[in-house]
Amino acid sequence: MTNELSANQELYFMSLAYEEAKKAKKIGEVPIGAVVVYQNQVIGQGHNLREKDQDATAHAELIAIKAACHTLNSWRLWDCQLFVTIEPCMMCSGAIINSQLPEVYFGARDPKAGMVQSLYQLLNDQRLNHQVQVHEGLFQKEASRIMQTFFREIRLHRKNIKKSKQISRNFE
Amino acid sequence: MTNELSANQELYFMSLAYEEAKKAKKIGEVPIGAVVVYQNQVIGQGHNLREKDQDATAHAELIAIKAACHTLNSWRLWDCQLFVTIEPCMMCSGAIINSQLPEVYFGARDPKAGMVQSLYQLLNDQRLNHQVQVHEGLFQKEASRIMQTFFREIRLHRKNIKKSKQISRNFE
Repeated sequence: MTNELSANQELYFMSLAYEEAKKAKKIGEVPIGAVVVYQNQVIGQGHNLREKDQDATAHAELIAIKAACHTLNSWRLWDCQLFVTIEPCMMCSGAIINSQLPEVYFGARDPKAGMVQSLYQLLNDQRLNHQVQVHEGLFQKEASRIMQTFFREIRLHRKNIKKSKQISRNFE
Repeated sequence: MTNELSANQELYFMSLAYEEAKKAKKIGEVPIGAVVVYQNQVIGQGHNLREKDQDATAHAELIAIKAACHTLNSWRLWDCQLFVTIEPCMMCSGAIINSQLPEVYFGARDPKAGMVQSLYQLLNDQRLNHQVQVHEGLFQKEASRIMQTFFREIRLHRKNIKKSKQISRNFE
């Protein structure tokens, strides 16, 4: 049976996922973070490393799930909780199903690629041999804000590059 | 642009995916294999290693995609083809979308968990920022047969264990 978490514990573990998101932002990755918890202990954690590793599969949740499987030496993450700052994509929703994770907490929705609430409700398809209890909204504001700031900074950076190119062209 | 393959090349690359499936069967894994092709060269390959690695994410396609990203040093698998013996699951369909693979060939459908044709058509959702050209049916019989044989052998093995336990109990 899944170990039930208190409201304080839920907040604490989501704050750790958020710390992971901040690590991603620091190295220029889309700021998403995740932790997997087993009996009140973090047994896997990860942040987005797609650009650094040049690996399409290096999402926060996938890294955290792989680490958790390694820690437990089991592909079944029964009795575990996954905390992730942003709504999982198709790949990460599939990794949640494949590892039979019973419980997922996510912060903010991803209206463009979220597969848990936004585009589909893949974690609750009764035709599959596993369904997931989903909790939504912890650290929602923080999770959204760090994403918005990240993309705003990227746009500004690109605009500045374009501007400086134009200026240098004027002097050629 | 994706390099167009001849019918013979398609057969050849699917036969390589099938060879990967056979490797999985040999070590007691669900026999599914995959290869990623770029400009007529295999740049990533994999077979199911879930039990051996005790890793819920160790599916053939995911391993092949990770390897292909590593080979190209790019998370974008533009101009590549993925060949896989069985219809991809949710996680692997997501990895295909995330790596922007333009073309996927699969052998046989998976009516219980297939996300490309059977339960959903996730590779052709127009709301996502990537869609995939899907080819179905190459090596269908072989891909199905190796799966059926594998599961038949597992059932037989379990039955024999049960029988031998009963016999030993009779002598206790």
